[in-house]
Amino acid sequence: MADSKLDSLLDRFAKQDRLALARLITRVENRSAEVSTVMERIYARTGHAYIIGVTGAPGAGKSTLVNQLVSRYRAQNKLVAVLAIDPSSPFSGGAVLGDRVRMTDHYRDPGVYIRSLSSRGHHGGLSRAAREIVKLLDAFGYDIVIIETVGVGQTELSVMDLADSTVVVTVPEGGDGVQVMKAGLNEIADLFVVNKADRDGADRVKAELELSVHLRPPVGWRPLVLMTQASNDIGVDALVVAIVRHADFQKEHHDPARDRERRTREFLEVLTSELEERTERALKNGAGGADQVLGEVREGRLNPYSAARRIIEDHAAISRLLDEGGPKSVRQ
Amino acid sequence: MADSKLDSLLDRFAKQDRLALARLITRVENRSAEVSTVMERIYARTGHAYIIGVTGAPGAGKSTLVNQLVSRYRAQNKLVAVLAIDPSSPFSGGAVLGDRVRMTDHYRDPGVYIRSLSSRGHHGGLSRAAREIVKLLDAFGYDIVIIETVGVGQTELSVMDLADSTVVVTVPEGGDGVQVMKAGLNEIADLFVVNKADRDGADRVKAELELSVHLRPPVGWRPLVLMTQASNDIGVDALVVAIVRHADFQKEHHDPARDRERRTREFLEVLTSELEERTERALKNGAGGADQVLGEVREGRLNPYSAARRIIEDHAAISRLLDEGGPKSVRQ
Repeated sequence: MADSKLDSLLDRFAKQDRLALARLITRVENRSAEVSTVMERIYARTGHAYIIGVTGAPGAGKSTLVNQLVSRYRAQNKLVAVLAIDPSSPFSGGAVLGDRVRMTDHYRDPGVYIRSLSSRGHHGGLSRAAREIVKLLDAFGYDIVIIETVGVGQTELSVMDLADSTVVVTVPEGGDGVQVMKAGLNEIADLFVVNKADRDGADRVKAELELSVHLRPPVGWRPLVLMTQASNDIGVDALVVAIVRHADFQKEHHDPARDRERRTREFLEVLTSELEERTERALKNGAGGADQVLGEVREGRLNPYSAARRIIEDHAAISRLLDEGGPKSVRQ
Repeated sequence: MADSKLDSLLDRFAKQDRLALARLITRVENRSAEVSTVMERIYARTGHAYIIGVTGAPGAGKSTLVNQLVSRYRAQNKLVAVLAIDPSSPFSGGAVLGDRVRMTDHYRDPGVYIRSLSSRGHHGGLSRAAREIVKLLDAFGYDIVIIETVGVGQTELSVMDLADSTVVVTVPEGGDGVQVMKAGLNEIADLFVVNKADRDGADRVKAELELSVHLRPPVGWRPLVLMTQASNDIGVDALVVAIVRHADFQKEHHDPARDRERRTREFLEVLTSELEERTERALKNGAGGADQVLGEVREGRLNPYSAARRIIEDHAAISRLLDEGGPKSVRQ
């Protein structure tokens, strides 16, 4: 993409053009070489949105709950974006689409933006793409950004790092699978929701979750456990209030050292994935600097570890690869 | 670790010292800086083991099935290693430990090596660690390496790329969650197993899986669908035969172009994660070259994208970081 085209897209983005937003998100999804340039240009405008993560097992009613949250925030006249990380596939397409369809209430509301990000084919890159899309939504002007994921797997969990408040949704009848997932989820939850609370066992699950909260070291925020029936719109107001309480707690206990830590961690992620993406791009485009090494690896004459060492320790070779994989503007 | 200590560990590894194997695996798990050196040294001895991946939802009976497979291969006098990727946590500890305990049959057998790799705290690095541990087990001399994962999440799925044959285990009563998981699993399966086949619905699940196989494009291997009752030791022999059939099929249809592709992909993974790990290590140890940039990021005066660009495009800075994060021997 020529720089002028990117400039015009960014201009339209700054003027609240939703189509420009959608196009930039698509570029992030496709990992185009301009992503870092885009992020550099919009970064100063980020930091205003409140990010809410909603996660839990499939079938816990996350989408219905998110739908209700969107209505509440719209009633407060806030602009809301939803990023749904879908474990999408032709096989499960039905179920997942079903969830999305429930969001149709809001599709026509210009104050709501809904986007799905497929969790497939991203490998380690999913959390980077999610983080950058959240930054775009934030910079665009959304007050609330809700990230919805199915709480399975490390990658999906790591997406929840982005949230200011993480809501973990469970249901009374959770079996083995839910137990296992609670494992990872337990530690990231700021708020627990027992949804479908009219079903048998809701009190027991609530008590279990409260116990797990009380077993935590008594420092910092203590996760609240709420009961909802999202499909009957019961308990949603209390959830909104709980999110405000958590946000207030964080403001009151604001710790500049944690900000510095968070910034350092983000930088490390950006730097390492930028190294990774530039190298991958350069090698896929047949990078000159690494031709010979690559050929030997391909024929099985050189093991990948010695090959990597040979390239990394040859400063000219690695610099050339990193330049070749960079945004076009760099090479102009 | 001094080079001489590493040398002695590698010597003992070459002499089939299981303690040396265990120590090297621990180093891989902890991402010590010597990992690439270890891999360079053992790489030539890899390529002999047959790698079997076993995956499926929690509670599908994977561990029992793996236990039975181990017995069969031991009866053939083969050396067997099992790498179990656990979604371990204090919370789910019980269930997971329960599974492991069933493997006690084999704990005292010197021809069987069992190791768990926690899926926590690895982020994108889990598949690299798993791949390297499999290489260690292969180089050590195991004939069969079985990787067992809970089939959830992208990272856990990507581990299955390592397998020569991937066995996806399902159960008759799989609900929503299983459906969703089948999604990703469907595409990676070489063999489907409907375990607990004495339960209601087994025939229906078998028919569904067979349909999904027939909907695939008619090229290459067509996944077989088998029925087992692992806990009654029924159907396991047929599974062993099916794995042999799949191995034979791959031998007969051996495609050198795919080997070259696989080698290129592995090299790309090693190169990019080596870049990532060296940079991370250097920055965590307070790398001199990036001090000023890191300081500005930490205080929020520089956005992470501009900071990354500044370091990557300064060839001296990035080279210095990569050297500082490399194995100690490099700097001697």
